[in-house]
Amino acid sequence: MMLKSFIQVHPDSHFPIQNLPYGVFKREPASQPRPGVAIGDYVLDLSLLASAALFDGPFLSNSDCFNQPNLNKFLELGRPAWTEARMTLQKLLSAEESILRDNASLKEKALMPMSQVQMLLPIAIGDYSDFFASKHHAYNCGVMFRGPENAINPNWFHIPIAYHGRASSIVISGTDVIRPRGQGHPAGNSLPYFGPSRKLDFELEMATVVGPGNDLGKPVDVNEAANHIFGLVLMNDWSARDIQAWEYVPLGPFLGKSFATTLSPWIVTLDALEQFALEAPQQNPTPLPYLAEKKSQNYDISLQASIIPAGQKDAHVITRSNFRHLYWTITQQLAHQTINGCNLRPGDLLGTGTISGPEPDSYGCLLELSWNGQKPLSLGGTSRTFLEDGDEVIFTGYCKGDGYNVGFGTCSGKILPSLP
Amino acid sequence: MMLKSFIQVHPDSHFPIQNLPYGVFKREPASQPRPGVAIGDYVLDLSLLASAALFDGPFLSNSDCFNQPNLNKFLELGRPAWTEARMTLQKLLSAEESILRDNASLKEKALMPMSQVQMLLPIAIGDYSDFFASKHHAYNCGVMFRGPENAINPNWFHIPIAYHGRASSIVISGTDVIRPRGQGHPAGNSLPYFGPSRKLDFELEMATVVGPGNDLGKPVDVNEAANHIFGLVLMNDWSARDIQAWEYVPLGPFLGKSFATTLSPWIVTLDALEQFALEAPQQNPTPLPYLAEKKSQNYDISLQASIIPAGQKDAHVITRSNFRHLYWTITQQLAHQTINGCNLRPGDLLGTGTISGPEPDSYGCLLELSWNGQKPLSLGGTSRTFLEDGDEVIFTGYCKGDGYNVGFGTCSGKILPSLP
Repeated sequence: MMLKSFIQVHPDSHFPIQNLPYGVFKREPASQPRPGVAIGDYVLDLSLLASAALFDGPFLSNSDCFNQPNLNKFLELGRPAWTEARMTLQKLLSAEESILRDNASLKEKALMPMSQVQMLLPIAIGDYSDFFASKHHAYNCGVMFRGPENAINPNWFHIPIAYHGRASSIVISGTDVIRPRGQGHPAGNSLPYFGPSRKLDFELEMATVVGPGNDLGKPVDVNEAANHIFGLVLMNDWSARDIQAWEYVPLGPFLGKSFATTLSPWIVTLDALEQFALEAPQQNPTPLPYLAEKKSQNYDISLQASIIPAGQKDAHVITRSNFRHLYWTITQQLAHQTINGCNLRPGDLLGTGTISGPEPDSYGCLLELSWNGQKPLSLGGTSRTFLEDGDEVIFTGYCKGDGYNVGFGTCSGKILPSLP
Repeated sequence: MMLKSFIQVHPDSHFPIQNLPYGVFKREPASQPRPGVAIGDYVLDLSLLASAALFDGPFLSNSDCFNQPNLNKFLELGRPAWTEARMTLQKLLSAEESILRDNASLKEKALMPMSQVQMLLPIAIGDYSDFFASKHHAYNCGVMFRGPENAINPNWFHIPIAYHGRASSIVISGTDVIRPRGQGHPAGNSLPYFGPSRKLDFELEMATVVGPGNDLGKPVDVNEAANHIFGLVLMNDWSARDIQAWEYVPLGPFLGKSFATTLSPWIVTLDALEQFALEAPQQNPTPLPYLAEKKSQNYDISLQASIIPAGQKDAHVITRSNFRHLYWTITQQLAHQTINGCNLRPGDLLGTGTISGPEPDSYGCLLELSWNGQKPLSLGGTSRTFLEDGDEVIFTGYCKGDGYNVGFGTCSGKILPSLP
């Protein structure tokens, strides 16, 4: 029989009892940030459940991890604590269980309408890496800049290529994004120009939220890597393509990316995603032994990006992709990141890179969708090559279960004009 | 008359009363970390001075910034507080002033022999960027990999090129460095190999420690940038050249750098360095207006790298360089980092990149010194192209004043063999 909550959850909701993603919220602007889980249209305050001694298992009963302004302490506890929390919460929220259901005063305090709280970044992010794990994205970018013969660099099939991103400018969904200024370069021997980015783009990504982490010098085995992954979020790795193109040789993207990166507020756990796992694409050539997994899996997560064009009200879907298209898995990404001894800390973030599918309407960024500005997209009676001031970009993603969704909610941001 | 301390300071010391660099130390393994300043062979405990109400100026008298496990809170206060602290400390330590000099019990508690304390990372580092600001270094690397005609990429003269580094693996001087394992690529179409790095290198750098920082979306003007810089440290940006060469296209250095970065423990303030300022090299072409400074200055800091070869006892100097050789100044680096709106936070670190001088004996890494392994260096009856297990690398740096030095102490690390 399907697990049901005593809370009414619409079948289209992203947040049934099968999901229970973690976030951090504030009740009032001056309130303390507190961890919560999403259930239907409500947020359940975990600090109040903890105060009521309802986390009574061995890993959580004496922990203050839910009495914190972020989830880092909970992440540090690792999978046994995560599993215990999930079991406790599914029990407390189930229709069969009276403890919370019949405690009107606790329910009144602990369950808040989602529309009435402010969501915050759920984690303090020490380091953020961004991978380049979609073969379709790597191929498309390569064709555009180097032609189809040399589209994908030879190292790409051996290495889950990545770069270090900027942690300070990671913001929560709903935060406005100011169009960055910077240097671009027209062509040939001309001098660079300076000004507002002329090629502002989004990148449809997801990101892995790291759990316990590892000590410096002690790599994580690829077959153990899943135990270091708490869950996933949607991520928009905003990109200024003109700034990026001029600056990135030889040390990689810098100011073309570091002005903002937006995360969705709810971390969907690997436990909730497990039933949507599927085999990852075949890898050829076979990866080196440190990347060879016993079980190489992705998740069947439908992803979608929409734009509300400046001055309009309706969102127009401009691409549909899926997490299953990733060539390098998140466990391979994590193992690769640590193979040189690099340490991960709780709350670190590993972005997947743009998740493009094989078809032109599944590409994950405007650079690909408009083929570097050559093919404008029609939407809402207007057209776009890159983002205009006032445009709002909205990502969503979910897994389709039998009678319910396990979803990520949305990840959105609106473009504000540059500084003068 | 020259400022003198009541504490005897040897003329060769790096830490006279003219310097007073900040660090964080522990008295015993189980003690709380506390901020201190170096004076001669002693560390002065700032938390005890604060408890004794000796910081009596307007910015510090009511602050708990010295009762912290790192300097971030002090950094956040900005230049007025830094100047006040320096004036207070120079007064308290001066030979003319009796408050501390004649308080035997406070002196006994607050002044500890440097040899008896353990130094820790002085800051919690949110983000670490590494620049590529030495023209000689950029030229030499370019000649090796692309030939003398195209040695320096066209963007280099317009942009203080940089990449995001890994903050988690930054360690304090004296920490052993385990040789990283990773992928390298012999040549042509051969398959990559996996194993311990075969080209382990150091990079002689310095790094800017950021003060108050800026809000997201609000760039720091280049002529205000010095007020955001607390001071400088020595930095060894250990590099695995074989891993780096194979991975870095197109997203830049990643695992070739992220296994370890070593900092010297004492942050020398800009206030202490100011008397050693000199004009930065002429820039041609003229930088874009956002990088054009009213006063473009470097500091005359002599830098030196030595190696104690495995199994030996003596250090052999292998290069002598100087901070004055940097083409892009630290204020230009900071302004560039924020021009797209990227926010800096107190304790962020901006590395200069390898500081090479113009002459072959002033190059800042083994890649240049051994010309990518083609010219072995002789030292202590043995030779090196890259680092061997057991080698210890020691950086030092100082400014020569009239009768005293303002120095950085040392930044050292020893190579341990790879994991099996």
